[in-house]
Amino acid sequence: MRTGINRQLRLTSRPVGDIKESDFEYREEPIPSPQEGEILVRTIYLSLDPTNRIWMSDMEQYMPPVEIGEVMRGAIIGVVEESKNQNFKQGDLVSGLLGWQDYAIAEGNSGFSLMRLPAPLPCPLTTFVGPLGFTGCTAYFGLLDIGQPKVGETVVVSAAAGAVGSIVGQIAKIKGCRVVGITGSDEKCRWLVEELGFDAAINYKTVDLESAIAQACPDGIDVYFDNVGGSILDAVLTKINLHARIPLCGLISAYNATEPVPGPYNYSHLLMKRVRVQGFIILDYIPRWSEAISDLGQWLNQGKIKYALEVVEGLGNAPKAILKLFNGNKKGKLVVKVSEEPS
Amino acid sequence: MRTGINRQLRLTSRPVGDIKESDFEYREEPIPSPQEGEILVRTIYLSLDPTNRIWMSDMEQYMPPVEIGEVMRGAIIGVVEESKNQNFKQGDLVSGLLGWQDYAIAEGNSGFSLMRLPAPLPCPLTTFVGPLGFTGCTAYFGLLDIGQPKVGETVVVSAAAGAVGSIVGQIAKIKGCRVVGITGSDEKCRWLVEELGFDAAINYKTVDLESAIAQACPDGIDVYFDNVGGSILDAVLTKINLHARIPLCGLISAYNATEPVPGPYNYSHLLMKRVRVQGFIILDYIPRWSEAISDLGQWLNQGKIKYALEVVEGLGNAPKAILKLFNGNKKGKLVVKVSEEPS
Repeated sequence: MRTGINRQLRLTSRPVGDIKESDFEYREEPIPSPQEGEILVRTIYLSLDPTNRIWMSDMEQYMPPVEIGEVMRGAIIGVVEESKNQNFKQGDLVSGLLGWQDYAIAEGNSGFSLMRLPAPLPCPLTTFVGPLGFTGCTAYFGLLDIGQPKVGETVVVSAAAGAVGSIVGQIAKIKGCRVVGITGSDEKCRWLVEELGFDAAINYKTVDLESAIAQACPDGIDVYFDNVGGSILDAVLTKINLHARIPLCGLISAYNATEPVPGPYNYSHLLMKRVRVQGFIILDYIPRWSEAISDLGQWLNQGKIKYALEVVEGLGNAPKAILKLFNGNKKGKLVVKVSEEPS
Repeated sequence: MRTGINRQLRLTSRPVGDIKESDFEYREEPIPSPQEGEILVRTIYLSLDPTNRIWMSDMEQYMPPVEIGEVMRGAIIGVVEESKNQNFKQGDLVSGLLGWQDYAIAEGNSGFSLMRLPAPLPCPLTTFVGPLGFTGCTAYFGLLDIGQPKVGETVVVSAAAGAVGSIVGQIAKIKGCRVVGITGSDEKCRWLVEELGFDAAINYKTVDLESAIAQACPDGIDVYFDNVGGSILDAVLTKINLHARIPLCGLISAYNATEPVPGPYNYSHLLMKRVRVQGFIILDYIPRWSEAISDLGQWLNQGKIKYALEVVEGLGNAPKAILKLFNGNKKGKLVVKVSEEPS
């Protein structure tokens, strides 16, 4: 048995409205030992994602919610410290859905619970929580498989400066589309246009959104990659084109709601314009993961995709850091550095 | 020039809330004469459809609204009285989107503006406003092309005793599905189950809808053919299955609204269950019309599809009759008999 402690953050209450730091409880436990077929993984990077908020609630959702008292679920990058599974060996770098803790036992079967990263690493390790991780693949399959953008079409993405949105827009540019991002600050608008090559960006907090969309999308909207729902979706629907596609990736505007949230008031436009809305969850695309990684890796190498990464130091800061996902106060991908990368 | 009068009903005001008879104005005009390339059509049957309510409004819609003062638009079956177009001859039976009037000039180009019916007629003429007309084809393409039901799946349809819904359910039965109809009276429930072969029917006015749906759909819902939107959609979404399909055909619950109508409160289920919602309008399927007619005609001949038809006598009664579409007080297809069938 390994000595040392396993710091954990456990869900102690379901948030009402915004997440509070007190919704998590800090615990120290012994480091667990893997049984036959299992692996001990040390967490290096913990990904913070809007979907964490879903798991913390008991709303209707796509996986079982995290139970009160359980270690908070999270996507992580880690290193195998000890393996009793023939598919993994000590020192392997892996990604998976594990938890907000220093160490976790993983079963090591195939699927999203654990995936081995390529060795030697072709790029910085953090890339695998960002553009080559869940977020990049979410952008890739949501836009290309569901959105099906064609050359010359107009693609609008909300939460455009977020980890997913910023990749969506750059893929749409690669595919020859006009790309318009909706985000929450002038600084992020500048980043999208000047650094990432978006054709236009709209700060929804300071404009009349319908007019701004009409101006930025003179030919209407063919694909709307929706991360937020709510009033932004309603504004987009006023300019939606015939036979448009709406990959429904997230509804962040509703996650913190304490009252029932209505669907879009312009829902009837789906009928009138024969629009397709398709909800998706990246876990459904695990069997096609390599398609995304191959294309995204190439685009990264070619400099066609850039990404921003904000690294918060220390597991203990995760409960405070996750609030940044909801107050619009970050660019790109947000991760917590839990322990050192192997040298 | 033909003598006689052309009775017309013109739109005189956009309805606020329910349609009122006073939203139409009765006019008499001379019977028009076709110019080169045109056809004079005498209306025999006028189809009354929920979509008429859309055209009467100035809401965002899929065709130009009927302008104030214009003859009300409607799907009709008629006979060619005079032709200056080589594709049609006197006596041809046709269907098309013409108007609430005795006589209309049609351009005779291809497309939905005018289609010639088969000669000799393989079935009663009224069949071509019902199961072999726009309504039957709407049911056919919406269910099969968008809903894509598989053997053993559960299909739910709202406005199930309506012209479209009653056909949807029967096609779904032919395709080997469990079929549940939602309608507004016990008498219509009996008709759906006992006459049309639905597996279950729910009178949404007298039950707790969520519980009733749960009971009628023990395996959840794979396809929801939506004619109504609103609270029925919300109830259906509580039992929607992973990767379900929702052909969005109509939103009749919202057509008479005088305030903005929110989309479904359970919109987030589209994300969590990775549901596809696809709006459609039957006019998009005109190029594939013959597929539907071929299958539907065969099923009618084999007695696998039954239909109900309510015939109202006289053009002047159309403004009163159309109210039946919105008060739930009819079964199957509602048509106005405007003039006699050719003997």
